[in-house]
Amino acid sequence: MKRNLKLAIEESTQGVDARAEILLADRVYNSEATTLREMLSLAARPHIISFALGLPAAELLCRENFAEAATEVLRNDLLAMQLGPPFQPLKRHIVSIMAQRGVTCSEEQIFLTTGAQQGLNLLASLLLNYGQQVIIEETTYTGIHKVIEPFQPKILTVPAEPVTGMDIDALEAILKDGVKPAFIYTMADGHNPLGVSMTLANRMHLVALARQYQVPIIEDDAYGLLFYENQMSPPLRALEEEWVLYVGSFSKILGPGLRTGWLVVPSQLIPKLSIIKDYHDIDSCTLTQRTISAFLDTGALDAQLVKLQQTFRTCRDLMINALAKYFPADAYWQKPTSGVFIWVVLPNGIDTTELLKIAIEQEQVAFMPGSAFCIKDSYQATNCMRLCFTNCKPAQIEKGIAQLARAIQRYK
Amino acid sequence: MKRNLKLAIEESTQGVDARAEILLADRVYNSEATTLREMLSLAARPHIISFALGLPAAELLCRENFAEAATEVLRNDLLAMQLGPPFQPLKRHIVSIMAQRGVTCSEEQIFLTTGAQQGLNLLASLLLNYGQQVIIEETTYTGIHKVIEPFQPKILTVPAEPVTGMDIDALEAILKDGVKPAFIYTMADGHNPLGVSMTLANRMHLVALARQYQVPIIEDDAYGLLFYENQMSPPLRALEEEWVLYVGSFSKILGPGLRTGWLVVPSQLIPKLSIIKDYHDIDSCTLTQRTISAFLDTGALDAQLVKLQQTFRTCRDLMINALAKYFPADAYWQKPTSGVFIWVVLPNGIDTTELLKIAIEQEQVAFMPGSAFCIKDSYQATNCMRLCFTNCKPAQIEKGIAQLARAIQRYK
Repeated sequence: MKRNLKLAIEESTQGVDARAEILLADRVYNSEATTLREMLSLAARPHIISFALGLPAAELLCRENFAEAATEVLRNDLLAMQLGPPFQPLKRHIVSIMAQRGVTCSEEQIFLTTGAQQGLNLLASLLLNYGQQVIIEETTYTGIHKVIEPFQPKILTVPAEPVTGMDIDALEAILKDGVKPAFIYTMADGHNPLGVSMTLANRMHLVALARQYQVPIIEDDAYGLLFYENQMSPPLRALEEEWVLYVGSFSKILGPGLRTGWLVVPSQLIPKLSIIKDYHDIDSCTLTQRTISAFLDTGALDAQLVKLQQTFRTCRDLMINALAKYFPADAYWQKPTSGVFIWVVLPNGIDTTELLKIAIEQEQVAFMPGSAFCIKDSYQATNCMRLCFTNCKPAQIEKGIAQLARAIQRYK
Repeated sequence: MKRNLKLAIEESTQGVDARAEILLADRVYNSEATTLREMLSLAARPHIISFALGLPAAELLCRENFAEAATEVLRNDLLAMQLGPPFQPLKRHIVSIMAQRGVTCSEEQIFLTTGAQQGLNLLASLLLNYGQQVIIEETTYTGIHKVIEPFQPKILTVPAEPVTGMDIDALEAILKDGVKPAFIYTMADGHNPLGVSMTLANRMHLVALARQYQVPIIEDDAYGLLFYENQMSPPLRALEEEWVLYVGSFSKILGPGLRTGWLVVPSQLIPKLSIIKDYHDIDSCTLTQRTISAFLDTGALDAQLVKLQQTFRTCRDLMINALAKYFPADAYWQKPTSGVFIWVVLPNGIDTTELLKIAIEQEQVAFMPGSAFCIKDSYQATNCMRLCFTNCKPAQIEKGIAQLARAIQRYK
């Protein structure tokens, strides 16, 4: 039978144009590989010191505690690998984590997601009409660019400064003009890529604008639990319950590879989000949801947060000191109070995309060039770079910054 | 400071319209909760015998082997919880699984997904322009309806018969008319909801049409590894490499809650799919990918497949016998050779959506009404029901079918 089958296939393909190719959707032809994916490959190369990716070092993740939690769940929970409703005990834990973050919310306002990235994607699907306006900062997380691109929105950008973050006065001017965007996207803490935390006055002003102009804010707080000072301002969601849609994640505190995050939104939006999630992936990995919940049952998160905050504070200081020691005098940066990034502004004339090639090929060190965080036909941050201080070993930070400084010398 | 903050918030909210609500995207207002999600809640109720969901019984999943695999991965693999490139060893295993399925492919043609559902969603994002045409069967998996809905496509339906599946002649007539759809979606084996497997002649005819009219076929093979006869036809992908985009899943053979699936596509499509996946969820759960791979390393899949096939063959026969014993003489069904579903056609005049209420409330038994698998303004299969024979305990099957027969009596 097999032979007949083969003959029949050959026969049926005769006269068919072999060069024909599957036609893709128009928007796909213009899409380009993200810098993130290239960097994931690059960072995996041996000998490269990578400041490129916004990840905690793998050595700091609690694999041993997780092994215990996973074993407990798989041995005792019949539904560990079965499809089911989102895991309620995990939502209860998230309510507690949010309380630690200064946010009062209920389980009915929590929506579980396959990471913060899916959280953003679901919210865009919820809010954004094809061709509608959105407001983002001119330098912001690349993942939001990719999320909104398929909707072909009109993107309005607001300047964002390394010292103060989003320019709220500029935002107000845009809204006063009568613009009615689907949402405003921002990060109040541990800004990616600027590393900045918004002042309390700016937070208050921002949520007041959201209320006044009835525009929802998507607050991406993926890095919010990594803070290094005692006095931190509350997240936007703590200041405004109805107009702030909060995006949280276990990626930076438990493990980026777990792909588990959450939203805090007005409860009436949950059924609509469920419908959207159904066609995306039905549910997030049940085993992972239940394992995270079992891990949180042990109370081990508090110690993990303290460990990460202490380690990352040290890493930040190591990098700040190394920058002062090795980087050119006309370069500029701020010491971040939260998150995992330092944004460095180099003198005009240095193109960091070009610099990256020298840095990788001649000095074995990687970073993210500023232009990766800007949309086309907008401000390009060509003389800027984003450095992550949490992904490599602390002992490598000074060495890597010295290498990067040498790359800048070579460029000049 | 806290008190000042509160006062400031109260002040800033004065004069703001408290009744205002977040505006959602237009398409969201029309979207309705899926029957799947309602059924997930219903099936979780005690005392209900559920034939509604297309899931393997939780008791049959290898939780013990999985606990060992997860422990091994978490103890020995530094990157178990870290973000990284898709896990290559898992792709190697999938190439072997595909070979068991009669498909020759290479690792470069495998794309890992967060379940088959995400596989469908990524393919729709890859292929479908806003407002473009697609071809689906008039009775088909509801998940594809939800996936294409946001693109507001022109949906062309082809009749599908419980005995032979998709009407390929009707499909040919549509294509001859000059229609150029983004894709044709179908299931050649274990059809959801019809339970039918396509004849080899129809498979050959279908892939020949795809080649001739240069239209890609999305072959959803989520149930393909669950077959109950020795002589099975090969999947469409075995007959055509360029025009068939294959969707596979671990859901029905390892665990639906793992949310891990794969695509087999021409290798040149992989970079484009990576871009699309980046904005959906960056990557599927690393821990789950590596745990599945470690489980497959042990060679335990073969025994698991044999166990599922034997158990489900028994369950199918139990249900077929019970249907013959209890169901009205003018009802009609086929004995499926693969998958997990039996499609029952009841006499005209019985509306299975109404029947479902009686069945649940008075007889504690659940199924999926036929209309759940049809799009609006099309054939509605109102007198049909889908019964899954793999989700409840084998001992409950005869009891449940007897209860369902009583519900039909009550309806009449």
